[in-house]
Amino acid sequence: MPDSNPSQNAVSPVTSGFLDRLAGILNPGQILSSKAQREAYAWDNTGIRAIPDCVVLAQSSTEVAKVLRLCNEMAVPVIPRGAGTGNVGGALAAYGGVVLSTQRMNKIVEIANNDRLAVVEPGVINGDLQTALSGYGLFWPPDPSSSRSCTIGGNIAMCAAGPGAVRFGVTRDWVLGLQAVLADGTVINTGGRTSKGVVGYDLTRLLIGSEGTLAVVTQATLKLAPKPQARRLSRAVFSSVQDATKAVAKLMTVGSPPSAIEFLDGASLNLLRNESDLLIHEDGCAMLLLEVAGTAADVESQAQEVNSCIATFSPLEQTPPVGIEEAQEVWAARYELSPILKKLAPKRVNEDVVVPVSKLNLLIEGVEEIATEIDIPIINFGHAGNGNIHVNLLVDPDDPVIMAKVKPALGRIFKLVLQLGGSLSGEHGVGTQKRDYIEWEVGDDSLKLQRNIKGVFDPKGIMNPGKIFPNV
Amino acid sequence: MPDSNPSQNAVSPVTSGFLDRLAGILNPGQILSSKAQREAYAWDNTGIRAIPDCVVLAQSSTEVAKVLRLCNEMAVPVIPRGAGTGNVGGALAAYGGVVLSTQRMNKIVEIANNDRLAVVEPGVINGDLQTALSGYGLFWPPDPSSSRSCTIGGNIAMCAAGPGAVRFGVTRDWVLGLQAVLADGTVINTGGRTSKGVVGYDLTRLLIGSEGTLAVVTQATLKLAPKPQARRLSRAVFSSVQDATKAVAKLMTVGSPPSAIEFLDGASLNLLRNESDLLIHEDGCAMLLLEVAGTAADVESQAQEVNSCIATFSPLEQTPPVGIEEAQEVWAARYELSPILKKLAPKRVNEDVVVPVSKLNLLIEGVEEIATEIDIPIINFGHAGNGNIHVNLLVDPDDPVIMAKVKPALGRIFKLVLQLGGSLSGEHGVGTQKRDYIEWEVGDDSLKLQRNIKGVFDPKGIMNPGKIFPNV
Repeated sequence: MPDSNPSQNAVSPVTSGFLDRLAGILNPGQILSSKAQREAYAWDNTGIRAIPDCVVLAQSSTEVAKVLRLCNEMAVPVIPRGAGTGNVGGALAAYGGVVLSTQRMNKIVEIANNDRLAVVEPGVINGDLQTALSGYGLFWPPDPSSSRSCTIGGNIAMCAAGPGAVRFGVTRDWVLGLQAVLADGTVINTGGRTSKGVVGYDLTRLLIGSEGTLAVVTQATLKLAPKPQARRLSRAVFSSVQDATKAVAKLMTVGSPPSAIEFLDGASLNLLRNESDLLIHEDGCAMLLLEVAGTAADVESQAQEVNSCIATFSPLEQTPPVGIEEAQEVWAARYELSPILKKLAPKRVNEDVVVPVSKLNLLIEGVEEIATEIDIPIINFGHAGNGNIHVNLLVDPDDPVIMAKVKPALGRIFKLVLQLGGSLSGEHGVGTQKRDYIEWEVGDDSLKLQRNIKGVFDPKGIMNPGKIFPNV
Repeated sequence: MPDSNPSQNAVSPVTSGFLDRLAGILNPGQILSSKAQREAYAWDNTGIRAIPDCVVLAQSSTEVAKVLRLCNEMAVPVIPRGAGTGNVGGALAAYGGVVLSTQRMNKIVEIANNDRLAVVEPGVINGDLQTALSGYGLFWPPDPSSSRSCTIGGNIAMCAAGPGAVRFGVTRDWVLGLQAVLADGTVINTGGRTSKGVVGYDLTRLLIGSEGTLAVVTQATLKLAPKPQARRLSRAVFSSVQDATKAVAKLMTVGSPPSAIEFLDGASLNLLRNESDLLIHEDGCAMLLLEVAGTAADVESQAQEVNSCIATFSPLEQTPPVGIEEAQEVWAARYELSPILKKLAPKRVNEDVVVPVSKLNLLIEGVEEIATEIDIPIINFGHAGNGNIHVNLLVDPDDPVIMAKVKPALGRIFKLVLQLGGSLSGEHGVGTQKRDYIEWEVGDDSLKLQRNIKGVFDPKGIMNPGKIFPNV
């Protein structure tokens, strides 16, 4: 876990010769090189700071191609960056180089409502796109919690998701095609404007989730869905994680699966009992927050089906489904938890592991055991329908004594996740934060293959070096 | 379009030395080398015949690895083959070599209904899996028309789909992870058992649709969906393709999109008027066959919503929605069309192009123009909700005079498809049949990149040579 920029102690690849040539490609306002300017691009959601050697504000795919060609020629690392809302250091110049910001490439190029697609530049904010689409009765399903500030380019780079993934899937399911620039400046187009297409290899999906290590996405054709007209929300409290887990597994087999199944573990509920005014059943060890979405005509029957299903798993408490206007109250536990965590441990370690739904209770049990052993509070909550749990260790990562205990504990948690048939990340990605663990999950042979694929796209290794892959 | 096996005129790579070493790996019954035995693997759905030099019936991933290692060492081409139901020659030894059949690897390894997943070997028949799943109230959505005989391995190799894709998506949306063997015998695992996962590159999707040119899939973990409890079917006839197209575009924005929107053009309707007893409105130039699927509770309201939507686009005729027991009658046009085509032109040329939904009418108009010019009947029908149209040229591909006219006409159709923002194949793939055209769609730079990716997986080029990529 690098927490500073090692290149600041080494010779910077961004020489005055490089900056001179950059000035020949871009306007002066597009090149940020003062310390104050560069510091504005030194952060993301990890709390790590890494000041880039230079920041470039590209305005078109042609400019991106020119910048990459120059960087490739002069072996200067390039770190593509959207809004900096990532959780694994993916958009940080942790090893020096040029941050290539797409924030000025923020045009919604086209909304073709009859073809249920939109063409956007990578710097478009997720929430701005949703606003533009709502007039057409459409939406783009990926809904990370940062949707008001994160960019579509960032969503694509990390294959972002959110609570809605349980019903609608993740970013890879909602992109039809991409325009992307390779390290040597070559512009390619992948996929297209149709919802089917099997001509050649699936480069679209290969780029989605590749964290800026293969290419820079300069335009995306997004698949859209009809926006649900209505929602119904409810809540249930269980005496054991096992009951909640069984209910989740059963819910995933009903005719119309819920549009969100959020989970809070016993530690989360204890925290809410201590730090908020919420009344939660004293024997409650797990809470499910449920949402269904659909047409006004069918949302009522969906909600009833979900509630009937829940009732068969002996909940201690269960609310009737309510409309979106009462959501704040029914889902209060989820809304109040994050601010409490931020107050108690502003720089807490948050790992977004994922296990098969039927193994959720074993994951929580195992994590509780580790928490007790190392005497550090661990709070687990997340997107239960996907088995995607945010494991929050309430520690200060800047405290070396604590972190000496945390690192081996994390290793044990990751091993448990893999034993249960899970994955180390459901939606945050690898970046710098999990690269030391990736081999545990994918294995040596696959990792070698992936390195070789990167070599095809980026022979000189200038694209976001130090991300995804461990040092060799 | 190769229609014989060129290697039969050249020196076969399958030497007696190779066969001797193969006999050291497998039991005698797993190696088929007599002409009669090899002829049984010489066909697919294209009508082309290509007799392999040898057929291997592998029984495990270990055996697949041993065979590939040997073939790689001795530079013997390997053609992976499922049930031979493909439409583009993908499973044919068109350039000689060993056909590696997965038909004996037909175990359903696991059905984990609580995790909505199944683990299968590649030789499992799609329909057999559906039968096994139906007891759990689950299904695997990919539904190619060959589902009663095609294999899951073949579905994965070609990224198969069918009418249900309009609602449920295609094979790439329903695979969680793969076990696959690379050309050198290395076994890798991709993805996993969870519905989310963003650790490393998306090798799962890279392998899906790669037509056996990168690796042999030896096990697949499939994502399952709740099986719809009920269906409602209806039919509408329009006086113009444009009206039908507009109705399709609108239908794709309703709350619950139909589970099938099948289209028949004016030429299809004329054929049915002449060759069947069906009564079709005399002014009808386009027919839509519609299906909705869901719970018993919501299927009625879905069907009403679809029918109300259709009614606003001035259909000449419109049936009320009926249950599955009356489907045969309501959808008779679709069921009767294929046998008529088979009778009139048993080896007809069938191209499964795809265009954005809003461009369907321009595609049909353009194809009609070409049909008139070359004086060859062309019948268009298919999966309208995806814009995926089967363009059927009623010709005998063995007639060189006719084919001299057909080949340039196909080129014109493909150019039209690409001008309209479409793709040359929605579900059949490239194989040998469209490899001369792939560059038109993906471009020179992407094709070069794809060749280099293949080089990473298969440096010696033994995996299904001559498929997807044009000769250089």
